[in-house]
Formats: sequence, C-alpha cells, structure tokens
Amino acid sequence: MIRVSADEARALCVEAFMRRGVPAADAALAAEQFVLCDLFGIPTHGTRRLSNYIGRIECGGINPKPDIRVVSRVPPVAILHGDGGLGTVVASRGLEEGIRRAKANGIAYVGCIDSNHFGANAAYGWLAAREGLVCLSGSTATPTIPPAGGRTAAVGNNPVGYAAPCAGGPPFLLDIAMSVTSRGKLRRARELGETIPEGLGLDRDGLPTTDPAAALEGFMLPMGGHKGYGLALAAEVLAALLSGGGFGPEIRHQFKEPERSSNLAHYFLLIDPEATVGRAAFEARMRAYCDAIKATPPADPSRPVRVPGEGAAANHARNAAAGIAMDEAEYARLKGLAAGTLRGEIPEA
Amino acid sequence: MIRVSADEARALCVEAFMRRGVPAADAALAAEQFVLCDLFGIPTHGTRRLSNYIGRIECGGINPKPDIRVVSRVPPVAILHGDGGLGTVVASRGLEEGIRRAKANGIAYVGCIDSNHFGANAAYGWLAAREGLVCLSGSTATPTIPPAGGRTAAVGNNPVGYAAPCAGGPPFLLDIAMSVTSRGKLRRARELGETIPEGLGLDRDGLPTTDPAAALEGFMLPMGGHKGYGLALAAEVLAALLSGGGFGPEIRHQFKEPERSSNLAHYFLLIDPEATVGRAAFEARMRAYCDAIKATPPADPSRPVRVPGEGAAANHARNAAAGIAMDEAEYARLKGLAAGTLRGEIPEA
Repeated sequence: MIRVSADEARALCVEAFMRRGVPAADAALAAEQFVLCDLFGIPTHGTRRLSNYIGRIECGGINPKPDIRVVSRVPPVAILHGDGGLGTVVASRGLEEGIRRAKANGIAYVGCIDSNHFGANAAYGWLAAREGLVCLSGSTATPTIPPAGGRTAAVGNNPVGYAAPCAGGPPFLLDIAMSVTSRGKLRRARELGETIPEGLGLDRDGLPTTDPAAALEGFMLPMGGHKGYGLALAAEVLAALLSGGGFGPEIRHQFKEPERSSNLAHYFLLIDPEATVGRAAFEARMRAYCDAIKATPPADPSRPVRVPGEGAAANHARNAAAGIAMDEAEYARLKGLAAGTLRGEIPEA
Repeated sequence: MIRVSADEARALCVEAFMRRGVPAADAALAAEQFVLCDLFGIPTHGTRRLSNYIGRIECGGINPKPDIRVVSRVPPVAILHGDGGLGTVVASRGLEEGIRRAKANGIAYVGCIDSNHFGANAAYGWLAAREGLVCLSGSTATPTIPPAGGRTAAVGNNPVGYAAPCAGGPPFLLDIAMSVTSRGKLRRARELGETIPEGLGLDRDGLPTTDPAAALEGFMLPMGGHKGYGLALAAEVLAALLSGGGFGPEIRHQFKEPERSSNLAHYFLLIDPEATVGRAAFEARMRAYCDAIKATPPADPSRPVRVPGEGAAANHARNAAAGIAMDEAEYARLKGLAAGTLRGEIPEA
C-alpha cells in the first residue's frame, strides 16, 4: 500500500473527468466526492470508483456536459433536473441549491432527478454540517431487496443520511442503507467458508439461508423486517415520487445498462438551526448530547461508546495528514485514467 | 368483547378530559388521537390509555390548561411550547401549525417541546396525508435502548413516522420504533415459555440473551445495530436538539415520575407536493408505486405483499363500521372515568 495525498487524488480525478469532456467546475465537484469518501475511509465510494464513472461516460451512459435546470414554485422547494449527468455533480449542485435556500428560508427541500450513482450520503451531510445546517438526504437505488413478505428484488436498498454540526468536534453523521448487512460482509463470510446468522438474506427462491453464497445469489434482507422495508419506501417517496424522478422499474442498473442513464433520484432536506434555537446554541446542545451518550459504559471496556460520524472524522484527519491508502495498481489506474492511456471499466453486474 | 362506536368512545374521552379541566377543543383533539389509534388497531395507544393520561392530570404531571405558545422566526419553521400539556394536544396543535405553514410555504418544520406522551405517529401522519401532505414525524421517549456497543439504557426507542397520500386508496403510513421487536412480543414469548432469537435484547448486564424474561429486565436492541441506534439519535436531534426541547436525562419517565411533565419533544416535517409535481400527480404516482410493489409475488402465496398503512386502513374501515372492540371491563372503566366515579391509574413502571 502507498499513500496518495488528497490533493494529488483530487487532481487526477479532475484531469480524468475533464479529458472526457466534463467542465472544470463539475469535475472539481465530482472529484471532491471521491476524495471525501476516501478520506472518511469509505473506499468503495472513493477514487476506486473513478474507472466505472469514466467507463459510463465513455459508453454514453453518463452525460459529461449536462444541461442542469432548477425548477422552483416556492422559494424553499426546488427540483433539479440532472440531464443524466454524473450523480456526484447533480447531487452536489442540488446540495448547493438546498444550502442556499435553507439559509434564506430556514428550511429547504431539493429533489434531484434524472441522475446517476451519487456516491455516499456521508459526504453531502459533511458539507451541509460544515455550513451549520441539519441535513437529511437519500437516494434511490436499483431494486435489490424484497418487500416484507415478498420474494423478489422489488425495492431499492436506498441509502439515507442524517447530519448535524456539533460544537468543538466532528459532525453527527449517519449514512446507512436499509439491509441488515452489506454484500461485502457476505462476500467475506463466503471467502472464509463461514455461515451467516439467519435473517441477513434469502436465497434466490426467497427462502431463508445461512449460506453466504446463496444469499449473494438471492437477496439481502432489510433491517427489522417491515421496518427497514418501510424506510426504504419512505426514502424513495422523498427522493423520487415527490420530485418527479424515476422509481421502481424505471431505474436502470448502472452496470447492467451502463450505456443508459440510471435515472436515479436524490433528496436533500435541510434545516437551519438559526431558525430555531440559533446556530451556536444548537451546536452546543449537540455537543452536550453526544458527550452524554459517549460517557455511558461500553459493553467492551476497550471500546468506548461512539456516536455516528466519529469514525469517519478520525479517518478524515488521519488520511488528510498521511494521504489516502491505495495499492500500486489502483494508483497506476488513476494515473492512466487521468493521462487518457486507460479507458474506464464497467464491472460485471 | 363488545363493540363501542367511535362516536361513543370519543364522547366518553371528551367528557373524562373536560371533567379534569381540559378545555373542550383540547379534549376533542386528545380524544381523536385515542379513537384513531383504536380504529387503526393500535389499542396500546388507544382509549385504553385514557386512564393513565387522566391519572397524570390528577397527580399534577400533565397540565390540563396549558398556555401553548408558538415562536416563529421565519414562516416555514416554528417551535411550539407545550407548557406540560397533554402530548396529544400539544402535538395536534403542532401538526395544525405545520399543515398551515406547509400549505403556505411548500414545506414546514414544527418542533413541539415541553410535552408528554403523544400517542402514535400513525394518527398524525394519517391527518397530514388527508390534507394532501407528505409528513415525517417523530418523538423523543424515555431512554430504554443501549447505544451500539453500550450496556446501559442511554437512548430513547424514539418512534418515527412517514406518511404520504395515495390516489384512490389509503395513505402510505409507516410508524416504527427503533427496537428490533417490541416488549409486548417479548412478554408473549415469556408467557409461552419460548426462547427468542439472539439479537433482540440484552440482559441487565448488557450481555446477549435468548431468554425473554432476561431481555425484559435488560434492554431491547435497536434494529440493524448501529443503524437503528443512529436513527434513534437522528429522531432526537430533529425532535429535541433542534427545537430547544429536553433530551437524554432531561426526559422523565411518565410512570416513574408521573407527577412531573415528561418533558418530551416531537417534530413534524411537512412537504406539500403542490410545490413539486402537483398534488394530483403526486398521489397518482404514489398509487402506481404502491401497486407495482403490491403486485410482486409473495413468499407465502396466501399473504400478498402489502405496503405500510394498508393494515391500519383496513382496520379503520372495519372498526369505524362495526365499532371498536373492547372488553366489558375496559368499557366500564371508560364510562367511570367519564362520569368521574373512577380516578385514573398510573401503571407500575
């Protein structure tokens, strides 16, 4: 493993995007999302994804120069039409729009439609909290989980995020999908030859399984059964139904149909504490709340209780100082994509 | 079991409240919340609770004539000070305030503070959806679940709700707390002498248990581990931290300290689809979305896939026609509370 500075990683991503026709300002927004995820220690949504994104621009699935339009009937609510652009660009523009509108009106909802994979809620929440705002966000995703009592992949494992600034420390930052566990953890169990507890997944026939390989061929189960299922639907209501975006089968898989826009939708719900208790008072209250919970006794004395966002912030500080860890091959690929000597790759779905 | 009409149940609750000094308009709001929960088939939050609420008025814990004040710095955001009133009155006033502000501004946030037990999110969501609005709601609760990696009850099992109107059918209506399962289900397992799966609860020492009795003496676990834990915190941020309400240890248990206001907080986040795609278009989209999911094959062919809210709506239709099912003792207690021949009771905590 080597360490690559955030600046270098950012510059390589910008160069790679611009070489495929992405305007400089948009390339900077998209690069920032990758770099933030790498800094947070979410490499699955970091620069490692550059190759997919580039591949989808190259095959025509992502529009490098979208004509992004904002439609707003009332000041605190807006819909942003992404024109099939990079999801990270569309969502970043949506967040900017939402931050501006929330600061002017106390609260804002922005729906982003006709978009693509937008990375991680954590990165948007981090930026919103830095502006002093409370942020709820979420995105649609290709249907991969069954409804409660169902046996087909009819619902997206839609990720949602919550963020709020905290005085003298990292923001509260929650970024979760609705499945009990992740496909990455199932893959690791399969590699280690381990079984998995019941309740994590179904096999391809919709039957409960403790075999990680069978669950990977089948479905991930939502957390809390009908609860996670309901929350996944609620995220889609806020992201897509309310905004005029694509939903359900109108969403296309980014790797099965890479040459078409995925037609994803995202939302940002932003509230300015200045409209309630005042920003400084809110951030001090958040600090007191988080500190009270962190002071409670842990189950394992060596692992203190944490609040969401602490791990990401600690990783951010370490990686910003030491550089982003990647292996030589990843680094070489980034450089090749930036120089134009490599083409993007679409992984098998 | 007998069947009591919604009108009679409502009238008995109104009389009981008014007899303890609650003004007529407030008594009607509070009665409506009980009746809605009974109609939905959520008897734990229905008229069965009247006795507790009355008991808390009688011992001075709930203020029958609160001086409710609304503070608003910007039109779409307001904080409602509940003055220790009935939670169902405070929250109903908050919802009214939010509905008015969302219709005028496209979106609204209302935080309700210095409140008490507010019943069920489902009833508020139902009312908001009937007004054509999308509604996110939630409440603080006494700390009863441990943080992820913790072993004390440091976090409220905070309930949240999501509601949205659907053309030609019942609204989308989700109302969930953050624990994997409910204490009621653990009690039933204990009565039946059954063990429970791992992951539902911890014993009083914070260790995993499959004994329902041990879990009842210990803690309920949040769904998805850190996910449900994080969502519980997010609900408290929206309900209490942002609004200036009490949080964490400032919250008092309604049955351990019945003679003091519980200092709970609630929130309503309302969005008017008229500000996005238009109300009729939104409701038609919701219908298409729900129908598509309901049309997917069920795991058990005799139990079709449902979307959240269908069960509550079916119960509502049946109970509105046939009356609310209750046993003779419950009915007698309602009549005694209304007539003033019975005093309210505070159950053991």
